[in-house]
Parts: sequence; C-alpha cells; structure tokens
Amino acid sequence: MKSYRKELWFETSKRREFINITGEVAACLENSGINEGIVLVNAMHITASVFINDDEAGLHHDFEVWLERLAPEKPYDMYKHNGYEDNADAHLKRTVMGREVVVAVTGGKLDLGPWEQIFYGEFDGKRRKRVLVKIIGD
Amino acid sequence: MKSYRKELWFETSKRREFINITGEVAACLENSGINEGIVLVNAMHITASVFINDDEAGLHHDFEVWLERLAPEKPYDMYKHNGYEDNADAHLKRTVMGREVVVAVTGGKLDLGPWEQIFYGEFDGKRRKRVLVKIIGD
Amino acid sequence: MKSYRKELWFETSKRREFINITGEVAACLENSGINEGIVLVNAMHITASVFINDDEAGLHHDFEVWLERLAPEKPYDMYKHNGYEDNADAHLKRTVMGREVVVAVTGGKLDLGPWEQIFYGEFDGKRRKRVLVKIIGD
Repeated sequence: MKSYRKELWFETSKRREFINITGEVAACLENSGINEGIVLVNAMHITASVFINDDEAGLHHDFEVWLERLAPEKPYDMYKHNGYEDNADAHLKRTVMGREVVVAVTGGKLDLGPWEQIFYGEFDGKRRKRVLVKIIGD
Repeated sequence: MKSYRKELWFETSKRREFINITGEVAACLENSGINEGIVLVNAMHITASVFINDDEAGLHHDFEVWLERLAPEKPYDMYKHNGYEDNADAHLKRTVMGREVVVAVTGGKLDLGPWEQIFYGEFDGKRRKRVLVKIIGD
Repeated sequence: MKSYRKELWFETSKRREFINITGEVAACLENSGINEGIVLVNAMHITASVFINDDEAGLHHDFEVWLERLAPEKPYDMYKHNGYEDNADAHLKRTVMGREVVVAVTGGKLDLGPWEQIFYGEFDGKRRKRVLVKIIGD
C-alpha cells in the first residue's frame, strides 16, 4: 500500500469564503502515483469545512444566507463560546457543511460525478489555515 | 490491496425519496471478495445523499417535514440558484443529510450496528442518477 | 495491508452528552501497529454521533442549545417516529452532527489539526451503546 500526504494552506480576505480546491487535490493525486484507493480531504481547523457541491455563484450565495439563518454570526453574546472568541457560529456552520470528504480514486483519477467539485469552506478567515490531503492505495 | 467499483443507478418517481440500498451494497461487497477494509458509498450527484439511519417509515416522514422546515422547496425565487433551476433546496437538504458514508468491512461483511441501514436520499428526482460504491482492502 | 477493529462502549448518565474519545482512539492506533493509513470512527447506533470539534465547555453548551432549536426533543408527539419511542429528535440531532469521522494516520499518529478532538455525541443515552474503530493501512 502506498500513501501520500500534503497540507494545503489558505488565508482568505473575508470571514467566510468558499474556494474550489478540486484542481489542487487532483494535482496531489497525480503526484502520489496512486491508481486505486481513496483520498481523504479534511479541514485541520474546527471552524472550516471541506465539502462537495456545485461551483455555482448563486448557490454559494444561497449557502451563505441559509447558514446565517441556521447559525447566525451575531449577536456574539448569544453564544457561551464567545467569551474570548467571536467565532462560535463558525463552529456550527462548519458542522452543517462537514469536516471532510472521502473520494474514490479509480484509474489514477478522482472518481467524481459530473458536477461534483471539492470546496474549502472558510467560516472564520483572515488567518492562515490548513487542509489535509491524505491518499492511500496502490 | 484489492479494489472494487460499481455504480448503482436510480430513477425515483417522486422529487424526494429514501431508498434502502444496504442489500445492494452488501452484494457489491460479496462480489468484491474483500474481507478486511472499507466501503465508500457516495452520491455522485450534488442534490442527492447517502446516509445511514433507521428503516422506519415514521422517521422518514419526520425527516421530510424537518428538511422542509430547514430548507424549504418553495418559494423557488427565494434562492439565487433557481434562475434556470428549481432545485436549490435539494442542494441544501443533501448537505444536511450528507454526501457519503464509509463503512468498515470485517470478515467479508458490512460491519454495521444493529439498526444501521444505508439509504440513498433523493431530493431532486424523476431522472436517472448514480451512487458510487468503492471498496478497498484485502 | 493490516487492519484493526475495536468497539468502544459507553453508557451516559444523561440523555445527551459529549465525551472526548481522542485518547481511546489514539490507544487503538498504537495497539494496531499501523503507521500509514486511515482510521474510521463511527457510531454503531443511529441516535449517536462521532464528530470532531473543540473540547470547550462553552461551545458544547452552544451545540446543545442550537441542536434543541434545530430539532427539539419535545413535544414528543410532533414526530411520527415517536409512537413507541421518544427519540425522533435524537435521530435528527445525530444527522446534523454526523455518524462518522475518517482521520489520517501518519507516522503512527492520528494526523489531527491543533484543536481537533474526536467526540462521541450521545443524544439518547442512559443505555449501553457502541462506537466502532476500524483502522486500515501498513
């Protein structure tokens, strides 16, 4: 069994942002030389997400509005976590969107459906944060 | 390391539907000849889900009501994604339910708890859509 | 490829409780002798969760309040599942929090970010329930 590991680093200019990382994950897979197996892609921070959905700006706007309705950023003092922090909402939003995705590797390629794109979801940005790409297989 | 891949196809008669696919996934595992490893089961479409829960009709009704409360289908024009589409709610509902499950393989069997059943969750049906089953192990 | 399997058992004194299981999962990994691969940690019950977040009491309080808002425990008869049961809300809460996590194994260690901790999330406790730890790799 072969394995491959790489960290992808991000620093967004806004508190919340979605970044398409499909190309970066595909490049990791190519570098790994693995043909059959799985790729795990996970946020290494607990106020960020890795998820799969459509790369469509309207939908991303809808996600923003929806997540703000489910877990509003403000008022900050509605959350006990926000004693020294102001990011409790980011922990909740990332929970809805998910920490990780596992993608099949088939014939040396990411085995994704026609519209599946992998995103980094930042909910407490403006600082350097990481995503882990771990590939195992043959 | 061995690997196995199969696509399961679905075309539901309703917009939203839950289908128990545990038997189909177990058949894939049997065909794979893999004894120890993991099974990845994921929706290949971004308006559908694969999740694990109870096969109980009352609960499935509760999921439907709950998901409609969290991410209503209508009015369609509340979502920016719905310019040419009417399925923004399906992207959100699938996000709550999850894209994928990873199940352990032990002794050639799906290593599930007593009530765990694997479901395909369709949120924008009436068209042919796919689930990927990928198994790796020995 | 090596594999390792262990069940972790829990019986909480309250209906809902979060338990940090990072140390127990790390002990499994050490016992497995696996250096490179992945760990799957999943609830074997459909009213419980395994998730990764911060070990911070204020945040855990926020999760409790938030999950009660998204999927209230009562009134019990608002859920069809609650004919013979009273735990429909637990199925929904666990869906939000997730069934499983997949964690990379690198150099014989859990490859977690700085604040990532693995939790068992109980939503219908006061009974014996299980988590599965499955590790594959070399």
